[in-house]
Amino acid sequence: MKAVLVENNTLVVRNIDKPTPKDNEVLIKIKAAGLNRADLLQRKGTYPSPNGWPEWPGLEVSGVIEELGENVNDLKIGDAVCALVGGGGYAEYICVPYGLVMPKPGRLTFNEAAALPEAYATSYLNLFWEGHLKPGQTAFIPAGASGLASVAIPMAKAFGARVITSVLSDEIAEKIRPLGADIIINSNKQNVAEVLKQEEENGHPVNMTMDCLCGDTLGQSLPFMAEGGYWVVISTLAGVETNIPLRPLLTKGLHLVGSMLRKRSNEEKSALLRELVETVWGKIELCEMKPSIYKVLPLEKANEAQDILERGENIGKVVLSIGE
Amino acid sequence: MKAVLVENNTLVVRNIDKPTPKDNEVLIKIKAAGLNRADLLQRKGTYPSPNGWPEWPGLEVSGVIEELGENVNDLKIGDAVCALVGGGGYAEYICVPYGLVMPKPGRLTFNEAAALPEAYATSYLNLFWEGHLKPGQTAFIPAGASGLASVAIPMAKAFGARVITSVLSDEIAEKIRPLGADIIINSNKQNVAEVLKQEEENGHPVNMTMDCLCGDTLGQSLPFMAEGGYWVVISTLAGVETNIPLRPLLTKGLHLVGSMLRKRSNEEKSALLRELVETVWGKIELCEMKPSIYKVLPLEKANEAQDILERGENIGKVVLSIGE
Repeated sequence: MKAVLVENNTLVVRNIDKPTPKDNEVLIKIKAAGLNRADLLQRKGTYPSPNGWPEWPGLEVSGVIEELGENVNDLKIGDAVCALVGGGGYAEYICVPYGLVMPKPGRLTFNEAAALPEAYATSYLNLFWEGHLKPGQTAFIPAGASGLASVAIPMAKAFGARVITSVLSDEIAEKIRPLGADIIINSNKQNVAEVLKQEEENGHPVNMTMDCLCGDTLGQSLPFMAEGGYWVVISTLAGVETNIPLRPLLTKGLHLVGSMLRKRSNEEKSALLRELVETVWGKIELCEMKPSIYKVLPLEKANEAQDILERGENIGKVVLSIGE
Repeated sequence: MKAVLVENNTLVVRNIDKPTPKDNEVLIKIKAAGLNRADLLQRKGTYPSPNGWPEWPGLEVSGVIEELGENVNDLKIGDAVCALVGGGGYAEYICVPYGLVMPKPGRLTFNEAAALPEAYATSYLNLFWEGHLKPGQTAFIPAGASGLASVAIPMAKAFGARVITSVLSDEIAEKIRPLGADIIINSNKQNVAEVLKQEEENGHPVNMTMDCLCGDTLGQSLPFMAEGGYWVVISTLAGVETNIPLRPLLTKGLHLVGSMLRKRSNEEKSALLRELVETVWGKIELCEMKPSIYKVLPLEKANEAQDILERGENIGKVVLSIGE
């Protein structure tokens, strides 16, 4: 089969052996693979696949089940599926523990379904499991133009939350308006902490933040959160340190939490995906949510596809189309 | 009845009306009241009693039930009890919602039982509910000479945890050795973060911290915690700010949590006290834990009693003895 290996910080298509599923795995013939920022780190050699996964990049795929391991019961050959994988999505085939496999929503194409697993699982994990977001509450989801925010903002809205996001220009604000955020901060014109302070004064303090930026804004904004609020750190693109004022943390009973999806156990991921399918897949079938695809490229153009993410050009997901 | 009011930042004994219990309350004839650091702030006027509680200080009492509200079923007149109260413990009587009343452990005197509610509930809340401490894990409980640590250290040990604490001198280290901590850091001689780093290297990283000090040590020590660890901030005596390194927070999935007992709802406190009685009272009856009393003074010497805490002179609790 074809797989896209990292050689000298470049992606190269190679022919390698097709894998065979273990007892608790299924073999998926991949139709499409979604791209994620973590893939860029893997190309640079700084973020290897965890143990037990192929060494090449790719955290999410869609496709068709071609073979079943001995202990797999609830899935069958020919099922259209998508899956969350620890690595190895940039290829024609992958073996996946059955707990990480989800049905492909009928309404979606394989390209769209490949854009679901990582971003939807990450958004669900951090909004609801780590962030404890409830209907009627306010979520702050910075970096509104990111692939993740293109999922997290509509997801939070679909569950009845109010959403505040931030972008770097008025042009981008216009582009992401369809996602449905209630407030879009232009962080080059407005001070984020000041806006959140005003929101608190207006009776709409932030109950949870899903923060991929961090840096100084985190510590500056924390005091204006709602009682018992959760600030979930999912990446540190704007700064790896922040000065935390501890009195508001204490008196408001706030939580600052670090959260990564990739390194969690397969058991925890399986439980997360089951809940995701139960609660979110229905909203996809009802057209309340849909992954936003920026561009689809063939497997052979994996470098070009990653470069789009590297330049931050995309609004929505970039997907590799694989096989005929 | 007599009650100790705050007048011009001084405690003064006054005669006031004896209260009458509401439907869900009991009237307790107080035998003893425990002192806490929060009482000192209340004398200074900076930490008033929450709504619905008497304006004078006192967060925990022991005594005998003298009258029952209409809706109280599981308690009866004459019961020896102790109770967690939002304020008003420095008096001869107090009305308390029945959910905040616990049986007095038979082995303990009323003076000892008055030292239980606040410190035991705070320790249990932060070690287990907020800190998720499990048997075999390592707890860091700084300020080993504090009244709270004199409860939290033996409690963590009684539940099978390994305990690290810190004190300001070798003399104090000797005095608190009977509490049972596995490691006592003299923080005037050793760097706390360095010790925690070594502990991590030795395979014993800290799983949870119950921190009343905070300040720079918090941010310096956080990187050496165990995966998924909890750092629970319960006061900020050593500094109200800290610089948090966000990469270890993210990659280890750490939690920084602010936690105060006093401002929680009566429902939450009731649930906490029920669990406390179920899990800890048995250990008290079996002599596995016992409150440590530093000094007992009469109600009339409330100022003197608070001055002991103000000077940080006590190791263990200071209690006011009330009534004949």
